[in-house]
Amino acid sequence: MDFTRNLYGTSLSLLTDLYQLTMAYGYWKSGRAEQQAVFHLYFRKNPFEGGYAVCAGLEYAVHFLRNLKFSDNDIEYLTSLRNAKGDELFDLDFIDYLRNLRFTCNVEAIPEGTVVFPNEPLIRVSGPLLQAQLIETPLLNFLNFQTLIATKAARITEAAQGDLVMEFGMRRAQGVDGSLSATRAAFIGGVKATSNVMAGELFDIPVKGTHAHSWIMAFANEEEAFEKYAEAFPHDSVFLVDTFDTLEGVKNAIKVARKMRESGSELFGIRLDSGDLAYLSIEARKLLDEAGFPKVNIVASNDLDENLIASLKQQGAKINSWGIGTQLVTAFDQPALGGVYKLGALQDEKGQWQYKLKLSEQLVKTSTPGVQQVRRFLDGHGKFVADMIYNEAENLPENLKIVHPLDITKQKPIAAGTPSEDLLQPIFKNGQLVYCLPALPEIQQRTQQQLQALDPSIRRFLNPHTYPVGLEATLHQLKTDLILKFRHLK
Amino acid sequence: MDFTRNLYGTSLSLLTDLYQLTMAYGYWKSGRAEQQAVFHLYFRKNPFEGGYAVCAGLEYAVHFLRNLKFSDNDIEYLTSLRNAKGDELFDLDFIDYLRNLRFTCNVEAIPEGTVVFPNEPLIRVSGPLLQAQLIETPLLNFLNFQTLIATKAARITEAAQGDLVMEFGMRRAQGVDGSLSATRAAFIGGVKATSNVMAGELFDIPVKGTHAHSWIMAFANEEEAFEKYAEAFPHDSVFLVDTFDTLEGVKNAIKVARKMRESGSELFGIRLDSGDLAYLSIEARKLLDEAGFPKVNIVASNDLDENLIASLKQQGAKINSWGIGTQLVTAFDQPALGGVYKLGALQDEKGQWQYKLKLSEQLVKTSTPGVQQVRRFLDGHGKFVADMIYNEAENLPENLKIVHPLDITKQKPIAAGTPSEDLLQPIFKNGQLVYCLPALPEIQQRTQQQLQALDPSIRRFLNPHTYPVGLEATLHQLKTDLILKFRHLK
Repeated sequence: MDFTRNLYGTSLSLLTDLYQLTMAYGYWKSGRAEQQAVFHLYFRKNPFEGGYAVCAGLEYAVHFLRNLKFSDNDIEYLTSLRNAKGDELFDLDFIDYLRNLRFTCNVEAIPEGTVVFPNEPLIRVSGPLLQAQLIETPLLNFLNFQTLIATKAARITEAAQGDLVMEFGMRRAQGVDGSLSATRAAFIGGVKATSNVMAGELFDIPVKGTHAHSWIMAFANEEEAFEKYAEAFPHDSVFLVDTFDTLEGVKNAIKVARKMRESGSELFGIRLDSGDLAYLSIEARKLLDEAGFPKVNIVASNDLDENLIASLKQQGAKINSWGIGTQLVTAFDQPALGGVYKLGALQDEKGQWQYKLKLSEQLVKTSTPGVQQVRRFLDGHGKFVADMIYNEAENLPENLKIVHPLDITKQKPIAAGTPSEDLLQPIFKNGQLVYCLPALPEIQQRTQQQLQALDPSIRRFLNPHTYPVGLEATLHQLKTDLILKFRHLK
Repeated sequence: MDFTRNLYGTSLSLLTDLYQLTMAYGYWKSGRAEQQAVFHLYFRKNPFEGGYAVCAGLEYAVHFLRNLKFSDNDIEYLTSLRNAKGDELFDLDFIDYLRNLRFTCNVEAIPEGTVVFPNEPLIRVSGPLLQAQLIETPLLNFLNFQTLIATKAARITEAAQGDLVMEFGMRRAQGVDGSLSATRAAFIGGVKATSNVMAGELFDIPVKGTHAHSWIMAFANEEEAFEKYAEAFPHDSVFLVDTFDTLEGVKNAIKVARKMRESGSELFGIRLDSGDLAYLSIEARKLLDEAGFPKVNIVASNDLDENLIASLKQQGAKINSWGIGTQLVTAFDQPALGGVYKLGALQDEKGQWQYKLKLSEQLVKTSTPGVQQVRRFLDGHGKFVADMIYNEAENLPENLKIVHPLDITKQKPIAAGTPSEDLLQPIFKNGQLVYCLPALPEIQQRTQQQLQALDPSIRRFLNPHTYPVGLEATLHQLKTDLILKFRHLK
């Protein structure tokens, strides 16, 4: 389902920074609008001090690009803009150019749910300079946020060791879409259900939820509140037990669970939302087991993240279901991924690629030139062993070697015949969608398979091992030469 | 303009947590759907270790509530939900109830752009229990995020001491709406322009922006790139000077500025996006001034926030315009405001209010009962001196006294005749909008007036003075009595 068309009643083509449009105008005016260009979208550092990221957001980008067309309203707004002198900011001929603009770029991308690493292009856009530049901001908006949240969800799911993890964060999310697309990305990362009903409808994600403290407060006492809830939901009740006193709440839940059993139904679970979750879950489990309710689930919520879950597991907490809110949907400890979008090459009049890079005093911020592809090498068991960023516009040498982007002394030869796959796949050809968008559960499954192919030392939270990602040696040389050339020109 | 109706093509009525709907079903089934209830939305702690917050998000809430009505699609989705046994989760009679549901609550709220403090109700909803509960999640989503960002923007604007502050954060924002509503809230907090073209169109906020590093890289050299840009924008050019070497870039900018002057236009500014902004801006200013360009603006960007701006000001940086991205739109150092929505009172069969609170082992998390209003007291110069949370359902005593919510020994008598105003204003009466939504520039102006009425010691970033907010003494007594009653009942 094209949920962006469904969700947004308006054109999203103005969802960009003004400087994309002023540059577009400049390229159009200087006759360079149609010059062929290649841009790459990538990030420089794994989020959360982790060892990997999980790529997400491509489906939003696809819907955005399919519908890219300035509407009459968009055109009217752009025509209304004024420069510092009070004159039209843009020539009317340029406005006409935009009115007739249709997306004609090639787009390659790494499928959602793929494990990715710093410096790897997640999306490559090739086509007319004006168009390829224009879409920078929305692509970054979609990919940065959803990759961040999918990665957070993968970490949380790993900490939960197979327990059910649910996303409960709408109330603290950053706006409507900060909630909806976070839910989608969390599902990609491994979360199995959400409290977000609209995300449930839009993305076909299972929805979960029972009652709040206010439900308890609305009745004369806790026991009556539980009873009334069980009458409405005899098979799905999860009682929130901490409104007054948690363990007393568990006892009240047991009383009602007994009555439910007499009338032929079973209590599904209890939820702990405050206090010492390790102690309280262990005590609650004892009370439930002793009363003959060993199958009643214990759900925990309350500002949880992967580190707290891991700590609770270590303390032997008897929790088998986790509701994760703020920390997940805002990626609280690092609420932005610093993805960037950089020009890698421009075609000259003869159709030759001119390689481009952005210099920086820090090598880590200097971009990589070329028309980049990522090749992932695998061992005999399908485990990932190294990734190579290479220039598709040139022939590869016979003997492959990857070089660390920041440390030329770290080099890794790749044995001939090592199994491999290229990660960037065709999404648009000349503006036409050529990619079949996978269903969300398939993406979730892909994430799990990808994570399994990653050594546990790379998945761990504290000081993870660094997965080897290098530039193919001739690309590394090209980059070094270009940097030296620019420095020499100064 | 109703931008939610304009922006979203679909009904937002499912934008809520499932437990709001399961509770709704429970209330409906137990015959309590129409029982009159009062809820308050408030936060417990100022964001960013600051001394205040700036209220924002009400307009989104208004549009949401005006359009609250389950669409055919919504109803179809709710009908499709199944319980653990595979049967319909909700009775069809309840689905019919939802289909015919119209919003009939009273809503009072503190206008956007008002300076607010912990424990003060920002919104009060009174009406049928089912409806008042249902809207908890979207109200929290809108108010939490926009209040957070408006507050961040107010702090950044304060640090910039009257310089132009622009919002540049779309690429790192949390989704589409995490960008759009952040821009709106940033404008409320004092930001004067945005790079976000769609926010410009939707909210009528001035848009700004010139060019990226890729513009420079697309030309043979920096000077040519500047020239071409100036041809397109003779009166609005801000040259990004750090693509290769910042001070060389300034010299190239000056060369082009001279040519512009010869052809009758003036360079508007240069932008620094990396390196030591204090040193580079001082050197750039010297170069520009010596070359006869004292009016060329110096814009800075690059992961700035209020603390970095304050530090740069202290170092004598010659920056007079600030582009703020990630740190502003994600509120990076605290990406969520922990606002909550709690039941304060329920009407019994006789029409009497039964006061309600949620207990917690921590007093700070125990909610306040009543039908709350906030009265703000002012001194003879219109400065804010103290806020009093009181129960509108009871008569006020003749001699007013406020009591600190967490420390009964901190009490403050209010002299008779102290000028005051009640902050919560009527927004909906019986579901009908009775509030005239102010235009965004008016809200921005209100924020500035409110901040001026606040002692500077409360506005400072490090260890701000605590503004006095207390419970009116009889409300404090009511709360204490209720807590003791519940504890005794155990």
